[in-house]
Amino acid sequence: MTTPLRLGIAGLGTVGVGIVRIVQKHAGLLAIRAGRPVVITAVSARSKTKNRDVDLSDYAWEDDPVTLAKRSDIDVFIEVMGGSEGPAKDATEAAIAAGHDVVSANKALLAIHGQALAETAEAAGRVIRFEAAVAGGIPVVKALTEGLAGNEITRVMGVMNGSCNYILTRMENDGMTYQEVFDAANQLGYLEADPELDVGGIDAAHKLALLASIAFGTQVNFGAVVLEGIGAVTIDDIHQAADMGYKIKLLGVAQMTGRGLEQRMTPCLVPDTSPLGQLQGGTNMVVLEGDSVEQIVLRGAGAGMGPTASAVMGDVMDIARGSRMTTFGQPASTLRKVRAATAAVSAPYYLRLQLLDKPGALAKVAAVLGDAGISIDRMRQYDHHDTSAPVLIVTHKTTKGALDEALDAFKSTAVVTGTPVAIRIEAV
Amino acid sequence: MTTPLRLGIAGLGTVGVGIVRIVQKHAGLLAIRAGRPVVITAVSARSKTKNRDVDLSDYAWEDDPVTLAKRSDIDVFIEVMGGSEGPAKDATEAAIAAGHDVVSANKALLAIHGQALAETAEAAGRVIRFEAAVAGGIPVVKALTEGLAGNEITRVMGVMNGSCNYILTRMENDGMTYQEVFDAANQLGYLEADPELDVGGIDAAHKLALLASIAFGTQVNFGAVVLEGIGAVTIDDIHQAADMGYKIKLLGVAQMTGRGLEQRMTPCLVPDTSPLGQLQGGTNMVVLEGDSVEQIVLRGAGAGMGPTASAVMGDVMDIARGSRMTTFGQPASTLRKVRAATAAVSAPYYLRLQLLDKPGALAKVAAVLGDAGISIDRMRQYDHHDTSAPVLIVTHKTTKGALDEALDAFKSTAVVTGTPVAIRIEAV
Repeated sequence: MTTPLRLGIAGLGTVGVGIVRIVQKHAGLLAIRAGRPVVITAVSARSKTKNRDVDLSDYAWEDDPVTLAKRSDIDVFIEVMGGSEGPAKDATEAAIAAGHDVVSANKALLAIHGQALAETAEAAGRVIRFEAAVAGGIPVVKALTEGLAGNEITRVMGVMNGSCNYILTRMENDGMTYQEVFDAANQLGYLEADPELDVGGIDAAHKLALLASIAFGTQVNFGAVVLEGIGAVTIDDIHQAADMGYKIKLLGVAQMTGRGLEQRMTPCLVPDTSPLGQLQGGTNMVVLEGDSVEQIVLRGAGAGMGPTASAVMGDVMDIARGSRMTTFGQPASTLRKVRAATAAVSAPYYLRLQLLDKPGALAKVAAVLGDAGISIDRMRQYDHHDTSAPVLIVTHKTTKGALDEALDAFKSTAVVTGTPVAIRIEAV
Repeated sequence: MTTPLRLGIAGLGTVGVGIVRIVQKHAGLLAIRAGRPVVITAVSARSKTKNRDVDLSDYAWEDDPVTLAKRSDIDVFIEVMGGSEGPAKDATEAAIAAGHDVVSANKALLAIHGQALAETAEAAGRVIRFEAAVAGGIPVVKALTEGLAGNEITRVMGVMNGSCNYILTRMENDGMTYQEVFDAANQLGYLEADPELDVGGIDAAHKLALLASIAFGTQVNFGAVVLEGIGAVTIDDIHQAADMGYKIKLLGVAQMTGRGLEQRMTPCLVPDTSPLGQLQGGTNMVVLEGDSVEQIVLRGAGAGMGPTASAVMGDVMDIARGSRMTTFGQPASTLRKVRAATAAVSAPYYLRLQLLDKPGALAKVAAVLGDAGISIDRMRQYDHHDTSAPVLIVTHKTTKGALDEALDAFKSTAVVTGTPVAIRIEAV
């Protein structure tokens, strides 16, 4: 096969320009690796006149991505515009209808409409690939779909939003509050236009839902992700968790349980000596666990021009080499619709309580935990300067139900002041 | 495509049995993922009667792997026997001649005969895949060949022999000498029958040579790997390197330089806060660097039944799904024959000297380094209890040539006693 593979690129922001640069700079390398030239035929973006510091004069220009998607002179439609609805969705559907393959970096689109898009594409004999939508330059979709294809996947987890990890590690290293780091990061342009996509965990949850679908052969179900952002994480908890040997991460976890598929994107404690615990700054890390492979850890840049364009080009090169891989690792029509697990699997928890300085106060707390069937692994009471003292408790494994029961019971003890903090400790 | 993919497995040691187990346990999963059944037709091993705790009664048996390789009722010949010559090579050649694809876990065979085998296979329209030959369960060949196919690779490095890393970290953690840990590991069966394959770095060098070929589009050249095992690493160096903020690892590094391809498998110092520095025990880690993706780190089990069988099955599933990927990421006929770099790129070095307790001794050492054009980054002299004291020096970047000149010149200073230790510090 020596006919060129012709690309149409919709979106010329950072990632789109990164793709153009790779195709231009590495034409020879791509051709020899794929066994055929990889060329750009046409591009589309909002502004034709914007200076992008890259030569687009050889490519046809379309103002409308849907028109680009319908062109007969492209083989692969590359969607790097973003947004789960509107032009991105319309153009992707149009590309499939026009008989093109699709490579997308659009996590929101795939997490929400991935099942329908994959079914349509596969019925038409087209492929949709989305390596760039999950964890930037890390080839994690490929590792899970192909490299670990002989495994029953038991758990997928990871730190998949670099901005959140940047904020949490900066809070820890520089002793700054959440709000201080958030404001600094926002000003530097590190956060999405709607920062809630980052700090609310939505962006990371899109990625988790996509990985869960591949891992467990289920229809992508973003709506079922239990979601909690990092806005409530305090510098106190970061320091006190560190004191107990843990780091706080916005951790995504997906696993199949007897009660359904569990998908969580929430702050969790992980041991500070684990690869996840040691992850600093804006880097991403995904952990894949399978019955044969045991545990694989993948680490790399989760965003940025180069890494994201690299991931797009990995998908493009697969298509150039003749791969007809299904979107989610098995035919979309065979993906199961499973119920969401109603409660998380049991785990140890970190509890921080503010305890009034009264005789028998600690005994009351211990009694509440005991009544809820929760046993204590470690406990520390700290010095206090007024009428109450912080108490840290690491519990043994317990259910979320028992924990909520205890948290509720603390209210009527008359010794716990303020709202107790409870953070899950994930075994990694 | 719903015709079954039929496997013939040559070798029923740990890995072979692991493959049989996966195919039997996950028949449904494999079929739905590949879109066709994956079945075993025939197997071969030295002893038919050995109890392997797995049911082989459904498979044809061959005493001779070459006969197995020639069978017309297999599509993929799986070679998990090992050895660079003899039956493994004969059977692999026979399988290609018979029109079969090959999946191999045999690093020695591929590192030595890979170019010829790949050329033969590709001329015949057959594929040879070898994910399991490099870093066990980590899908690193796939990541490099496919995921990063849009990158010019700038450097590949890693800890690729779990036994060596186990020995080095155990020396550090338990304060044991090399010989003590070696003997314990050997007795527990952690080392190859010929331990030099492990501790001499040969096994890891096979893997590095394979990755270098893919990374740089060059003919695999195991003979050109600069090789130094861990036998000379002392507990003193481990502790004193730790004191300076480093760990000692048997580190493989491959990079293309203006003076040719550099491939090294030698003890190196890496920062103790880096992912490589933090790697404990028998785990493997590979670091891939490309011009777009920046840096990807992959971590996982480098050996064992499950992980290695997982890697073999990843290759099998690719073939089942219709992938016709070339062995080294581009047609074997296009791989370049490049010269080996005659000298390593410059780097800082760690030096440990035993210095006689004489006035002006340190000045003489500093003068030798200055004369060789080597500048000192950090220096520490330790307490001494007799007539000489250990001195540690971390140099700024220097060439191996200048370093060797200085090491030679130390001899005539009359203040350096014993043989100085010099270990490269790799920027990771």
